[in-house]
Formats: sequence, structure tokens, C-alpha cells
Amino acid sequence: MSVIDEMLAANSRYAEELARSGQQLLPAARVAVVTCMDARIEAATAFGFQVGMAHIIRNAGGRVSEALRSLAISQELLGTRAVAIIHHTDCGMLTFTDDQLRRRLRENLGANADHVAFLPFTDIEQSVLDDLDAYRESKMVRQDIPVRGFIFDVQTGRLNEVLPATARQPVRSR
Amino acid sequence: MSVIDEMLAANSRYAEELARSGQQLLPAARVAVVTCMDARIEAATAFGFQVGMAHIIRNAGGRVSEALRSLAISQELLGTRAVAIIHHTDCGMLTFTDDQLRRRLRENLGANADHVAFLPFTDIEQSVLDDLDAYRESKMVRQDIPVRGFIFDVQTGRLNEVLPATARQPVRSR
Repeated sequence: MSVIDEMLAANSRYAEELARSGQQLLPAARVAVVTCMDARIEAATAFGFQVGMAHIIRNAGGRVSEALRSLAISQELLGTRAVAIIHHTDCGMLTFTDDQLRRRLRENLGANADHVAFLPFTDIEQSVLDDLDAYRESKMVRQDIPVRGFIFDVQTGRLNEVLPATARQPVRSR
Repeated sequence: MSVIDEMLAANSRYAEELARSGQQLLPAARVAVVTCMDARIEAATAFGFQVGMAHIIRNAGGRVSEALRSLAISQELLGTRAVAIIHHTDCGMLTFTDDQLRRRLRENLGANADHVAFLPFTDIEQSVLDDLDAYRESKMVRQDIPVRGFIFDVQTGRLNEVLPATARQPVRSR
């Protein structure tokens, strides 16, 4: 049985067991999470969200620049009023550069991806800070709501908050 | 307690219970799923994936055009070799037009989003077909692997496959 057929079989069992009445389009906890596609992040369990509570946006790295369209829809049309940005340890985005991936795509698929920014990074904490900044620099999303950044440790399963430099290093008067 | 603090409390309980040894960076089932951020889609449970099995890519609508960067990374660097594209009933993307959302963002946030395509749609089955096409038209992703499209029914929890027109209407010899 192929992997997608196994997925369908699991879904049949799920649907038979499910009593789904009462779930609404609007997320009950009014929160949106931006995180990585990584297979070790089981968003619902790891972050404590039951069905219907939160928007979960996921892409390679959990990059905010690619999540702004979704966040604008989430906030403006579906009423979310908090954002958690969650990158993680041992991320695949730490393992390559744009040039390396472009070369592989050219060699293996004949694709010209020279125009594509794959958004890798070399430091997880910095990538969270960069994405908090990317959020703050966008006019399409609300600046009057809580927006916090975290690193998910795939070994321990624990979330550790990344505080912006302004919160960590208060400017002293001279 | 704020919603993000509740998330952290849930995560602490999760981390305490978790024995996570043996989970690897490469997804064990070698499959990537593209689906919507919708709060009623609990991807792991609904599609039968345990921790470590699958890449889960999620954005508003589950649009493939915004998932190609992630899919290229998933396939070329992390070895996935199957794709499931999953849209769903009662999707928020059925409720607005680009012009309506742009107007709201201008009125509520003073944002000029005239350049942003928010990728709404008016027909779920067509949106799946469009996204199967978007996949097929990209050179950055593999064309030699299974790629299938589905609609997730948020009432019943069931996945229903959307077959491309070529599969549904075989050309007859004249």
C-alpha cells in the first residue's frame, strides 16, 4: 500500500470515530502559529491545541515572510489576535545555502531556481529574531497584539522563548 | 493567562511526558502534505501521521503556489517522494475576494496590499485541480512521484480524492 493510500486508510478510521459537531470556522483560541514543516513537530500535541482552536501555518523553516498572506487572512477575516513564531533545533534550514540548493535543482531537475530565495539560516535564535522583525515591518498584520518567538527543542519537546534584544539588553542611560 | 502562555503550559506537560529518542530529520514516510491553516484540521490525527513521518506544509487555503519553496527543500534535501494536496469544505478562502480584503486592510490598518494576491477561490474542487496543475507546471519539484489531491470534509473528517479531468473523462477513440 502506498504512503498516500495508508494516509487514506488512517483517515477512514479517524472519520468513523469522530464526532465533529460544533467546530466552527473561527479559531476558538484566536491564535495563529507560524512554524516549520518538520516531521517531528506535531503542532496540536506539542502546543496543546485541540481541534478548532488555532490556525497553524507551516513552511520550510517557519519563515514569517512567506506567512504574511496567511496571517493577514487569519487576523482580518477570521479574528485571530495573537501570534507565536516557532523555529526549532536541528532544522533542515541550517544544512544548506541558496547556491547549493539552486545547483542541485539545476543538476537533478534541470530547473533554473536562481530567482528563488529558499530562506535558509545559520543560527536558529537569529532566525526567530529576524522573523519577529519581519512581522514588525509588515503593514498587513496587526501590531497591537501579542507576537512572541520561540525555539522548539526536538530532543526534549520543550519550547524556549526568544526575547528580542530590546527586552534582553535594556538601554542604560549614560 | 494569555493564550500563548497557555500554549507554553501545555508544552511543558508535553515535554515532560515525551520520550523523543530516535526521531530523525528525514521524514520516515517520505511524504509531504500541503493543506490549509484551518483550525479544524488536526493534520497528524486526521491523516494518521505519527511524529517524524511527514512534512506538513500549511497556509491559508493550502495553496501550492506558496508551497513550492518548501516542497523543493522537502524533496531535494530531505528525501520526500510523495505529495498530498488537501483543501477542505467550509474554507475561509471561499468567503472573500482580493478586492474586499485589500479594502479592509486599507481601512483597518492603513495598509496598501494592492500588490498582494491572497489566493481566494470560489470552488473547492476547482482549487484542488488548479493546485495539482500548479504543481505540474513547476520545474522545482519532482514530476516522477505520486501527487494526489483531496478535499477534507470538516463535518465528517473524511478525505475525498479529487481526480484530474483526464482521469475522470478518458478520451475515447473516434
